[in-house]
Amino acid sequence: MTHTTDARAIGVFDSGLGGLTVARAIKKAFPHENIRYLGDTARVPYGTKSATTVRLYAREDIAFLLTHGVKIVIAACNTVSAAALPDLEQHYDVPLMGVVEKGADAAFDPALHPRLLGPHRRIGVIGTNTTVGSEAYPRAIAARDPQAEVIQKACPLLVPLIEEGWTRHPVTRAVVSEYLEPMRQAGIDTLILGCTHYPLITEALADFFGPDVRIVDSAQAMVLALTHTFAEGSVPPNAQHANGEARYYVTDRYQRFQQLVQAFMGGEDLHVELVAAEDLSAALAQRERGNVR
Amino acid sequence: MTHTTDARAIGVFDSGLGGLTVARAIKKAFPHENIRYLGDTARVPYGTKSATTVRLYAREDIAFLLTHGVKIVIAACNTVSAAALPDLEQHYDVPLMGVVEKGADAAFDPALHPRLLGPHRRIGVIGTNTTVGSEAYPRAIAARDPQAEVIQKACPLLVPLIEEGWTRHPVTRAVVSEYLEPMRQAGIDTLILGCTHYPLITEALADFFGPDVRIVDSAQAMVLALTHTFAEGSVPPNAQHANGEARYYVTDRYQRFQQLVQAFMGGEDLHVELVAAEDLSAALAQRERGNVR
Repeated sequence: MTHTTDARAIGVFDSGLGGLTVARAIKKAFPHENIRYLGDTARVPYGTKSATTVRLYAREDIAFLLTHGVKIVIAACNTVSAAALPDLEQHYDVPLMGVVEKGADAAFDPALHPRLLGPHRRIGVIGTNTTVGSEAYPRAIAARDPQAEVIQKACPLLVPLIEEGWTRHPVTRAVVSEYLEPMRQAGIDTLILGCTHYPLITEALADFFGPDVRIVDSAQAMVLALTHTFAEGSVPPNAQHANGEARYYVTDRYQRFQQLVQAFMGGEDLHVELVAAEDLSAALAQRERGNVR
Repeated sequence: MTHTTDARAIGVFDSGLGGLTVARAIKKAFPHENIRYLGDTARVPYGTKSATTVRLYAREDIAFLLTHGVKIVIAACNTVSAAALPDLEQHYDVPLMGVVEKGADAAFDPALHPRLLGPHRRIGVIGTNTTVGSEAYPRAIAARDPQAEVIQKACPLLVPLIEEGWTRHPVTRAVVSEYLEPMRQAGIDTLILGCTHYPLITEALADFFGPDVRIVDSAQAMVLALTHTFAEGSVPPNAQHANGEARYYVTDRYQRFQQLVQAFMGGEDLHVELVAAEDLSAALAQRERGNVR
């Protein structure tokens, strides 16, 4: 039995800061791993941009992470996962994993569903207008179980409420109730949080749906996916005993930036380095000139 | 007595669709005027971008409107008015008017304040994080009355609530109350709506503050400013008797676009033409090559 180890970092990117919920879960689950996070805060949100633009930005984000020698790239961004990832996967030597596919996997993973689920799965999906409109989750779920019923609901107010810090506010509970009462009535067994901001209101969602609905978020889904990936050996874990180093990059620091970082990191403060959006374009240009894979 | 007339259009631009509330009020107040509206929806929001970028985009937006031969340019965008307009004004042959300066004017205009206001003015200002953080309104008000007290409050949830169509929703009233109770307690006499979305919730705001608080929005303020401008004769009105023609341009059509257009236009549907953001850059480049003023 061979023990392989790979100290190269895990690369995580998002259009903004929401993906920090994914980076944080990975750091907690795999403390020996090195992590490089990129939040393209200068160009957030990706969701309102054309698919062509999103693909370009995603290629730039990936190129930047590859300059840091990562062993795997995680798109912690639903827009990128839905709009760009399927076309990009075959262009890189390192694996790309996106939150849509891994979220759909998690909805069927027995590790996240300790109780036996019936044959008639009914899965709720919430996200931004763009994510829900893309139909990416229903497609991914149908590919795993064509009989599963998917009930989607776009919840565009949840991100602003979370960014305002109103995660336990009565207004947020009222908005959750207004958006999701039909989904509760429909009797879903699983709720997929199709937006990396939403783990911050898991409590309000769990209170609303009660204990019988299993909530799957992108952070859990990615930890599960990495667990399988490390177990299969396609990407070896970092088997060194020292704690890994995490580095965080953003392309802009907007107002209330540091408060949001703390919120997404569960209260932990973070040193975040600034890179220019032009540096991402330059990283992509360099890759293409050198025909690097 | 000479009657001058100028059939050239009034140009109005905004980072998005909120400025339609201004265009609509101008169209209603001056039905003979021709209007050209530009919403830079591909690059919305401007508020999270650096002042350098906002200035560049504003110059491109203005250059585009000037290719339509406008006689005056109205920046119906608080970010542009606060961050870019003071530097730009002297570079054009046609007047530029911004919602911040004209909003501050309106707060002191007797036409909007029929009842006599005491010497101790107390003015509330609400807007996005960026607008409030810029301190542009307090500066503009202090320039008019150094004794006036200004109470600002950033209300970042109001735009998403309005874009969700919840203008009469109990959640919106709860959010208004949460944000603005301290301002009500302070006893403001005037409330400036420092965001072109907010006229859509004037009713909720008026109910909350009661009849003694005068609400000033950017649309009213611009109509008032144009009335003065036409009266002074620095820009002549269009004295022809036919109704003017309004044309609307945007750089992207995002999800729920048409619903929002209707909301901002008071239920009226609108034909909106698409232009590429690159065309705005090209208009600016052409101006600079030709050194046009």
